[in-house]
Amino acid sequence: MSFKIGLLGLGTVGTGTAQILLNPDQRHPLVKDLEIYRVGERSPDKLRAIGLDPDLFTADLNAIVTDPSVDIVVEVIGGIEPARTLVLEAIAHGKHVVTANKALIARHSDEIFTAAEKAGVYVLLEAAVGGGIPVVEPLKQSLCANRITTLMGIINGTTNYILTRMQNEGGDFATILKDAQELGYAEADPTADVDGLDAADKIAILASLAFGGRINLEQVHCEGIRAITAEDITYAQQLGFVIKLLAIAKRQPDITEPVPLQIRVHPTLVPTSHPLANVNDVYNAIFVEGDPVGQVMFYGPGAGSGPTASAVVSDILNIAALLKVERGETTQSDGTPLLDPLLAPCHQNYCAIAPMEEVTTRFYIRLQAYDQPGVLGHIGTCFGNHDVSLESIVQLGRRNQCAEIVVVTYEVREGNARQALVELEQYEAIASVSSVLRVL
Amino acid sequence: MSFKIGLLGLGTVGTGTAQILLNPDQRHPLVKDLEIYRVGERSPDKLRAIGLDPDLFTADLNAIVTDPSVDIVVEVIGGIEPARTLVLEAIAHGKHVVTANKALIARHSDEIFTAAEKAGVYVLLEAAVGGGIPVVEPLKQSLCANRITTLMGIINGTTNYILTRMQNEGGDFATILKDAQELGYAEADPTADVDGLDAADKIAILASLAFGGRINLEQVHCEGIRAITAEDITYAQQLGFVIKLLAIAKRQPDITEPVPLQIRVHPTLVPTSHPLANVNDVYNAIFVEGDPVGQVMFYGPGAGSGPTASAVVSDILNIAALLKVERGETTQSDGTPLLDPLLAPCHQNYCAIAPMEEVTTRFYIRLQAYDQPGVLGHIGTCFGNHDVSLESIVQLGRRNQCAEIVVVTYEVREGNARQALVELEQYEAIASVSSVLRVL
Repeated sequence: MSFKIGLLGLGTVGTGTAQILLNPDQRHPLVKDLEIYRVGERSPDKLRAIGLDPDLFTADLNAIVTDPSVDIVVEVIGGIEPARTLVLEAIAHGKHVVTANKALIARHSDEIFTAAEKAGVYVLLEAAVGGGIPVVEPLKQSLCANRITTLMGIINGTTNYILTRMQNEGGDFATILKDAQELGYAEADPTADVDGLDAADKIAILASLAFGGRINLEQVHCEGIRAITAEDITYAQQLGFVIKLLAIAKRQPDITEPVPLQIRVHPTLVPTSHPLANVNDVYNAIFVEGDPVGQVMFYGPGAGSGPTASAVVSDILNIAALLKVERGETTQSDGTPLLDPLLAPCHQNYCAIAPMEEVTTRFYIRLQAYDQPGVLGHIGTCFGNHDVSLESIVQLGRRNQCAEIVVVTYEVREGNARQALVELEQYEAIASVSSVLRVL
Repeated sequence: MSFKIGLLGLGTVGTGTAQILLNPDQRHPLVKDLEIYRVGERSPDKLRAIGLDPDLFTADLNAIVTDPSVDIVVEVIGGIEPARTLVLEAIAHGKHVVTANKALIARHSDEIFTAAEKAGVYVLLEAAVGGGIPVVEPLKQSLCANRITTLMGIINGTTNYILTRMQNEGGDFATILKDAQELGYAEADPTADVDGLDAADKIAILASLAFGGRINLEQVHCEGIRAITAEDITYAQQLGFVIKLLAIAKRQPDITEPVPLQIRVHPTLVPTSHPLANVNDVYNAIFVEGDPVGQVMFYGPGAGSGPTASAVVSDILNIAALLKVERGETTQSDGTPLLDPLLAPCHQNYCAIAPMEEVTTRFYIRLQAYDQPGVLGHIGTCFGNHDVSLESIVQLGRRNQCAEIVVVTYEVREGNARQALVELEQYEAIASVSSVLRVL
């Protein structure tokens, strides 16, 4: 059985999505069951450019969402309209929907989810928050046993890039923003990012999932990073903090009388020992605290064609898997019902495992050598004889009348490094090889 | 409809699991549908101790896995036998199984999954790797569109605790191991942890999920941390690395001709800038690289009653949700099929949001003051008048003939801090308040 996908939009995310579906090898076997059935775009040229059959093209997006053959509509055009109308129309026609549209969901989840529930269809949105980072589904499925108390995230890549550069370079906001715009890390109109509005959309979506209620976006307190100065960053550093734009949603776990939720976006001094403090550049991370799980964090690329498409296709696969279960397909002649193909392990074969000597890795080797002229040279030659390239040979101390020498190699075949060590240990100037560790 | 749980074992994880099920408020509504139906233990005393009805007790574990009323068997007794026999028996009787048993799955996944597929039942095992960290399900469901190339993890808490202390204190392995044993962070027989065997079990399970094939545990190369010395840690630090026990599985993404998998556990020098370098103490993290998602990381508590139980109950809920879909229940009078209650948003109401002045948070306040005797004292008094407790008042520089003063508060009500600032700005010695930022 194949599942017919109607793809609305072939921009960055749409292209990434199509590229996954066109190359199913070594992905989950269910990817092969997904068929790009119609692509809504302005012109068929974009389809040709990425190897899609131009016959799939249509400029009439409404024809896709009303097409009786389409099972799943993927909305990756962005913005509020016509996305909203198309999504509602798709739902009204019984299509499941996958969307990456955070602005749409943050503003119109009410009518969209009400319509979806009535129609009995899924609206999945992993790609709307955190790009490729699995966070929406883990909140729904993996942390569902918890009382969530805190949700905190670095969920806007542009502002994290700017703050990381201010931190590293000591520069001021305006200069680095300008540079970020030239490099493509910030939009020409940076308002949605630097004033925290994009992060507000995303925390509203996450909080809704974590705290089991809808969020009125207008009640999300929102401050951006325009006012952050180089001085603040320096002083914060002196006090043991880094400044990050955090989106925060919190609830005191009071069982007897529910207390209101806190939900806010603002620059925050984060202790350098906190897991969020080391999330730099365009990376995103979402930190969750719950009872009884404690503290967990999800880290990864918050944007980009590939990561976001990874999230879109995972949503499509989850719907396809559920449809298989719902349709009551059977796998076996005795009528055993089909299991969800994502949750049930389906592999029959053993993986071939490479023997350790075939592995390539970097090495750290610590050895003790007697003081003799040319010993470092001999060590280098010995590794060279076995095709082991060295990054460094350093004498780092003296112990028991020997020089402590540390060798770090480049990526080499483990078998070669082992042979070099056998040869090296025979050399009279080498007293001992005390550690052989691998380096990432 | 309720789902009847047969709980095998009421140790650390079993107790945590029961405690979640006994306290469903503010968790996913589906938790209310889970019923602890039988508890297999040695004596009913443990049931009484945590408020479970002692009538649920049985010492006959086999009676639980063969009971026609039980829907889901939760195996949290650990070890190979009798766990293996009980799990196979449960499967043969058509029960779905949730297990936290990494040793069992790493050794007997072959027969267990073959039996489960034949019987049409789920065997879920989120709790077997990474404690409370969502990683098994995200690998199965959220990253399923990817070609995974690398899986690397700090997945043994004991060794990470020992290495973190060696790093921080400069102590040697034997002393810190002994201390860890006394503090309960390491077992009396530490072999499984410090020789890497526990990590090998876990990476075999993760690799099987990520690379879509079974793993022969005997082919997992395994080195522990006994040989790591204080010198190695110091030298590694000088070269810009920390030493971590990593479990690694890798595959070159060669589409035309599949290459063998690398799978190994060994101490590894990790560059301090790598996300895994900052995972300390008993925390675990799993780092995944895939095409097209790029690099993502899952971080959290790798063990413990609450975290592991969080994973166990999420597995139970996922099975319950699928059973609802599979049984074709309908929600509405018009026969609209029920959606998966974990994936479909079910909340109708808006969350109450606290106004910003009611939020409690720490503040960083930077202000400029003219040199006058008693100015720091006045600042302190002014905050005190509004119940704002201060952690520090520091003069950090001079600009434009003013002292730059940074105030850091404890957790205070935002409204009080704002009132204090209004009063402070009226004081003639204060030239300006240039930054008001929140502190985590």
